[in-house]
Amino acid sequence: MDFKSWKHVFKLDPAKFIHDDDLARICQSGTDGIIVGGSDDVTAEGVVDLLMRIKKFNIAVVLEVSTVESVTPGYDYFFIPTVLNSTDTKWVKDIHHNAIKEFGDFIEWQQLIAEGYIILNPHCKAAKLTAANTLIDEEDVIAYARMAEHYFKLPILYIEYSGMYGDVHLVAAVKYELEYTQLFYGGGICNAQQAKEMAQFADTVVVGNIIYNDLAEAISTVKAVKDTV
Amino acid sequence: MDFKSWKHVFKLDPAKFIHDDDLARICQSGTDGIIVGGSDDVTAEGVVDLLMRIKKFNIAVVLEVSTVESVTPGYDYFFIPTVLNSTDTKWVKDIHHNAIKEFGDFIEWQQLIAEGYIILNPHCKAAKLTAANTLIDEEDVIAYARMAEHYFKLPILYIEYSGMYGDVHLVAAVKYELEYTQLFYGGGICNAQQAKEMAQFADTVVVGNIIYNDLAEAISTVKAVKDTV
Repeated sequence: MDFKSWKHVFKLDPAKFIHDDDLARICQSGTDGIIVGGSDDVTAEGVVDLLMRIKKFNIAVVLEVSTVESVTPGYDYFFIPTVLNSTDTKWVKDIHHNAIKEFGDFIEWQQLIAEGYIILNPHCKAAKLTAANTLIDEEDVIAYARMAEHYFKLPILYIEYSGMYGDVHLVAAVKYELEYTQLFYGGGICNAQQAKEMAQFADTVVVGNIIYNDLAEAISTVKAVKDTV
Repeated sequence: MDFKSWKHVFKLDPAKFIHDDDLARICQSGTDGIIVGGSDDVTAEGVVDLLMRIKKFNIAVVLEVSTVESVTPGYDYFFIPTVLNSTDTKWVKDIHHNAIKEFGDFIEWQQLIAEGYIILNPHCKAAKLTAANTLIDEEDVIAYARMAEHYFKLPILYIEYSGMYGDVHLVAAVKYELEYTQLFYGGGICNAQQAKEMAQFADTVVVGNIIYNDLAEAISTVKAVKDTV
């Protein structure tokens, strides 16, 4: 299934344990796809192991690449973030350049999808790691969205509040700017009501951490999103 | 005329004087377009004045934006560099973001064209200004080309040797990597022979400074490029 039609996806962290039964419920929940990705302790072993377990189900699976070392084949797509509000070229294009320099001969380019990230929770690990400037207002975020759509023509813009539920008015304002670039929202979705709220504006709602805290609530977000769309 | 079919263009510096007769010879030379752009003392007055004078001729004219303050309407396209080998996010995406934040409501987006720049002459002003890492080898440049074509999907990759004639083998190697991204070569072309050599590999050859030093030689590069293609 093409990621462009995704409304709801679950994001699984390869560094976190998930029981086979729980994974089956996630994969058979009616969600449109699984993103495998995390910031800490992501290893090739974890990434392969989770892939093999997800592959038993008939569902699209994407690796969101955080470290080049953890990349393994077999995924349907590889989502590669470029952090639009980072203050360090490393997270905008340098690690990308290094990875292409090292592995360019082996990359299936049509599987590589550029994700423009805007990281908005100042306290999350991703913001610190990427030296993201999170002290930005709505005008700044809208300008990033326009840059993503019109200048870099990125297929995906990902508003990331990692660990914190975001500003739905901001997500609405960003959606209003986008026509071709697909808007992902991720961060802090803990229940069906929040998933529903973000699904009014985001093209694709990403549900992550709640999987590990309350699986039933996590599963409930699938129907909430599908009913909203 | 669409820039995608350009084989030869002249680059005029709005801060440099050019006599009306010389400008007429440039515009009627058979070149495919005129790029207006420079690094020093670029003012809105200079950019408007040159535009008005070029507009008397039936030729495509593009503003390559170096400072937001100098942008004026009336150009066919606005080429906006993103310096792929810069070490400062300012020249990759920050000035772009600021300009979009300030002027986003007035931009005709379809006129905006992203140019991936690789600056390879360590002694040129552009390299110093943008803190470009010019200590890179062919593998690095090829990885930038692959990143431009496959990851950012940039319409233009511009190999810039500003003021110095470049490595034709490197330009050939980059061209070999590109299918969709249009390869511009600029820098140090002083005669028909050099223009011909770069035209074997670059999709578009840019001739600049020699205009101000030897107009007849500059004009001779048009036929040299057209005969090569």
